[in-house]
Amino acid sequence: MRAKDIMSTNVATIRGSATVEEAVRVLRLKGLRALIVEPRSGNDAYGILTETDIAANVVAYGKDPKQVRVCEIMSKPCIVVNPDLEVEYIARLFANTNIWRAPVIQGELLGIVSVTDIIRKGDFVEQPKVIYIQKELEKAISEARAISAKSGITSQAAIDAWEVVEALEAEAYYYGVPKPEKDAREEFSEELRPQIKEMLAIGK
Amino acid sequence: MRAKDIMSTNVATIRGSATVEEAVRVLRLKGLRALIVEPRSGNDAYGILTETDIAANVVAYGKDPKQVRVCEIMSKPCIVVNPDLEVEYIARLFANTNIWRAPVIQGELLGIVSVTDIIRKGDFVEQPKVIYIQKELEKAISEARAISAKSGITSQAAIDAWEVVEALEAEAYYYGVPKPEKDAREEFSEELRPQIKEMLAIGK
Amino acid sequence: MRAKDIMSTNVATIRGSATVEEAVRVLRLKGLRALIVEPRSGNDAYGILTETDIAANVVAYGKDPKQVRVCEIMSKPCIVVNPDLEVEYIARLFANTNIWRAPVIQGELLGIVSVTDIIRKGDFVEQPKVIYIQKELEKAISEARAISAKSGITSQAAIDAWEVVEALEAEAYYYGVPKPEKDAREEFSEELRPQIKEMLAIGK
Amino acid sequence: MRAKDIMSTNVATIRGSATVEEAVRVLRLKGLRALIVEPRSGNDAYGILTETDIAANVVAYGKDPKQVRVCEIMSKPCIVVNPDLEVEYIARLFANTNIWRAPVIQGELLGIVSVTDIIRKGDFVEQPKVIYIQKELEKAISEARAISAKSGITSQAAIDAWEVVEALEAEAYYYGVPKPEKDAREEFSEELRPQIKEMLAIGK
Amino acid sequence: MRAKDIMSTNVATIRGSATVEEAVRVLRLKGLRALIVEPRSGNDAYGILTETDIAANVVAYGKDPKQVRVCEIMSKPCIVVNPDLEVEYIARLFANTNIWRAPVIQGELLGIVSVTDIIRKGDFVEQPKVIYIQKELEKAISEARAISAKSGITSQAAIDAWEVVEALEAEAYYYGVPKPEKDAREEFSEELRPQIKEMLAIGK
Amino acid sequence: MRAKDIMSTNVATIRGSATVEEAVRVLRLKGLRALIVEPRSGNDAYGILTETDIAANVVAYGKDPKQVRVCEIMSKPCIVVNPDLEVEYIARLFANTNIWRAPVIQGELLGIVSVTDIIRKGDFVEQPKVIYIQKELEKAISEARAISAKSGITSQAAIDAWEVVEALEAEAYYYGVPKPEKDAREEFSEELRPQIKEMLAIGK
Repeated sequence: MRAKDIMSTNVATIRGSATVEEAVRVLRLKGLRALIVEPRSGNDAYGILTETDIAANVVAYGKDPKQVRVCEIMSKPCIVVNPDLEVEYIARLFANTNIWRAPVIQGELLGIVSVTDIIRKGDFVEQPKVIYIQKELEKAISEARAISAKSGITSQAAIDAWEVVEALEAEAYYYGVPKPEKDAREEFSEELRPQIKEMLAIGK
Repeated sequence: MRAKDIMSTNVATIRGSATVEEAVRVLRLKGLRALIVEPRSGNDAYGILTETDIAANVVAYGKDPKQVRVCEIMSKPCIVVNPDLEVEYIARLFANTNIWRAPVIQGELLGIVSVTDIIRKGDFVEQPKVIYIQKELEKAISEARAISAKSGITSQAAIDAWEVVEALEAEAYYYGVPKPEKDAREEFSEELRPQIKEMLAIGK
Repeated sequence: MRAKDIMSTNVATIRGSATVEEAVRVLRLKGLRALIVEPRSGNDAYGILTETDIAANVVAYGKDPKQVRVCEIMSKPCIVVNPDLEVEYIARLFANTNIWRAPVIQGELLGIVSVTDIIRKGDFVEQPKVIYIQKELEKAISEARAISAKSGITSQAAIDAWEVVEALEAEAYYYGVPKPEKDAREEFSEELRPQIKEMLAIGK
Repeated sequence: MRAKDIMSTNVATIRGSATVEEAVRVLRLKGLRALIVEPRSGNDAYGILTETDIAANVVAYGKDPKQVRVCEIMSKPCIVVNPDLEVEYIARLFANTNIWRAPVIQGELLGIVSVTDIIRKGDFVEQPKVIYIQKELEKAISEARAISAKSGITSQAAIDAWEVVEALEAEAYYYGVPKPEKDAREEFSEELRPQIKEMLAIGK
Repeated sequence: MRAKDIMSTNVATIRGSATVEEAVRVLRLKGLRALIVEPRSGNDAYGILTETDIAANVVAYGKDPKQVRVCEIMSKPCIVVNPDLEVEYIARLFANTNIWRAPVIQGELLGIVSVTDIIRKGDFVEQPKVIYIQKELEKAISEARAISAKSGITSQAAIDAWEVVEALEAEAYYYGVPKPEKDAREEFSEELRPQIKEMLAIGK
Repeated sequence: MRAKDIMSTNVATIRGSATVEEAVRVLRLKGLRALIVEPRSGNDAYGILTETDIAANVVAYGKDPKQVRVCEIMSKPCIVVNPDLEVEYIARLFANTNIWRAPVIQGELLGIVSVTDIIRKGDFVEQPKVIYIQKELEKAISEARAISAKSGITSQAAIDAWEVVEALEAEAYYYGVPKPEKDAREEFSEELRPQIKEMLAIGK
């Protein structure tokens, strides 16, 4: 599942020159938690104004929302999400940068994705990434072993197959799966060693 | 406006021994963004599990929510809010601790208050705290000056009145209002000085 | 051991309108490391002024402590500790919020608890929490197994006993004890399985 | 000046499955400070491995770079920069997220931009943004005043001109220029007031 | 006042291989808040173990202090303070790095300085740095003006005198004193301008 | 390898009273990434101005570098590195304090060491610290066992030998090597136990 599958398209924009009072009115009226500050021109950056920006910078200091402009407290440039970004990556990006909603942009503004969207619409319960990768990895290892057995360990097919294994291992380590003493290819090579020795002995 | 005026009473609790899968199911079913982990006994502390805890610790690492327990990723003890805490203070507390929702507790669990409640239900637009304090301060200064004029600057009534002024000044500085060179009482004292001198001169 | 057992009752309060010079004088006179800023009225929040607040905001900028008010640099609302909070929880709360002393409040101000109190008066050396929980857990497991054997695994007594086990497991995971592949009840169920099968076979 | 004007196109990529030893070899050989981890497929995200990632996660713990994979310590998804992002925005983005280099991507990987590029190649010394905006603002105000005088303050031309003023004011506030008591349009309106009153009086 | 004037010489050291239980025993026995971990050899670094390290890493996780070694939770290398470092600089260093005690070292371990030493023994109340600098600055400006008047603005003596002014201004800005539109030398130069013009006119 | 082996001696200094424009000119001219702010007198502290300080405080806010002084944005006192500090410790210090370059000072300014120097010139690839310690540890254990066997476990030589083991174990734990259930000496003692018992039995 990707950003485009879980994002909300109920998005409102605001000018940086608007007051925070106007922003609050829009947030309340539309039941939103953030507003996107649109670029002023083709080359300008996107910004975002969230309810936490308002709480931390206006409410916490008892300031008059009519006297504060959006441009003073917004985050600009804001971190943007590609519509094809996977749910797990969105969660990692949010956790690393301590933001919890971001506009989804590709050429134009497509929607907004939040931590609530991840929890409510993500498929991480039905399809936990690590379990999926581990299954894929097992399959890829069997395949690589089979190909190596059939076409020889130095064949291009075997090399390609072991590369798939390696990439899946890398993905698993990225998700925090503990790295074993030996990776799959090393283990396979070591199993082969006595056979190879034997073969060499026979060949003599 | 206080926590009890803006909090939501739509609260769900969960045991620390439940799985994250169960927690997600409750969050989705009830349309919530956090669950309260109730104390195990009278003397135990409250905990909280928010959607950001799940995103950062489970989704971002592709973990299986069936294999992770609430107790592994919850915040416990969590920061709690008194039902009488004012909206501005809640916002300040949230901003200082980087949390954005907290249980409202007094003896028992009364509700949950979030940054969304602050923005949607707070009266900070209609009644900005600093403007309110500044008006109160002006009133208090006039009063203190009037009482000082009538009963003398060393009368108990005047001392009390200037103490009210001082407390309001302190509150204004807390909210970030810039401190003037001289506070109201000093300014008043300096205005009096020539008069006092004159009086002393006359008295000669 | 709880907050009330280790807290110091040697507490001094100060008004938010006092100068930092006055605060330093009290800290020096009474040999304290923090002062509590009392609420201005029944509904107001507690604040705290610590020596690190003064060092970071006044000394580090060479400011005149006579020109800075307590209200400008205090933390308010401050995080408060319940007198019944256990020492381990106080340490966790302090570590999570990066504060190292807090007022102990229940209705009224009872004392102040600091990281020094935890280290000097806590019983964490004599009674490490994890070791205590692990012993309790072993006991609870034996009991649950015994009850299950005697009254049947589906009896209310057994269900209650396994719930005690689960709660202790949750507490252990909270303290960072690594979660085993299977929890105690699962392990027990799996041990039973062949017996049940056999019984079913006999029953045929 | 924009990202594309200051970025370096001397970029090297690495697979997530490579060891940190291989990464260090490439960094040394090519005199680079970061490597880009290319997406594994069209929909995958970009990652980055910087010299600080290696120092903090491998060197500081005395780990063997041959035993650690890039995927274990890289940042993925990484924050990416649009080639048209202005230098000031890049600096703000870097400061807000505490990263100091990022890939420049538009459809494909175009280069890498770092804080060193900003300092060495940026035009912020010759053309400080705030000074530029203030000049533009003055010009826009004169123009808006002139148009208002000529075509009337309620003409579309005047409304458009004041909108340009407002947008430039917003940009100035964003850069931290202190907000005046009254913005340019308000000031102008207040200057007009007596004239309008007079006109109305004449009109009677 | 400098580190050597306020530091405590009541210092205890511990080996990195000692258990946390031993460390707690020493802390309690000697009434200390931190222990210094001495270098193992001439070229090794100093470390520090504070009560907050123990609270955050051992107590908060209910760990057995007999099972945790000092080397696992100490900070090493630790930030060290030069005996000649001024109190204001110590406070700034502590605030910037969020540490609140550090060993004072010059060749050998001389003592330990903490935020409590700063507050209790510092002279920041009697001698606020900014007020001191401002007085020095005023004196230096008068002197520079006098020398310029007497020996001419281009004399070496005047140049030297204005350099002293500039250095004091720099120190004031460092402490956060707001920078005026024009610095003292510019202001002086501008005052001179009409006189110079006049002189030139007379000279005609 | 130590700071002095990897540091750069291509260092430039600047006065705190210089403008940021001057600093940028020096950085560009000399191809540097930081400048050292020299102490104003024998007892003053060192400061540092890095390119990230300029990007975050000047460029990101569009400020005019001619109007900002070095003293306003530099870090002073800065963290300094001893020329004998080992590469792994430098990396740890940098990671803990989130700085990535520091002056190398011993009495006088000797050079500057950065994360780039660590990656480019460090020997952490050829000589990973943990592997080195583990080899040393194995050797020390054999030696301690041999000495214990020869001279008796209570001989001074044995005690000294086991202390070397303990110190190496401590260093390994510091680098994050997981602590075994029993340390080397305990294990050895337990192996001895039956032999001792036997000897005692024989002795009977």
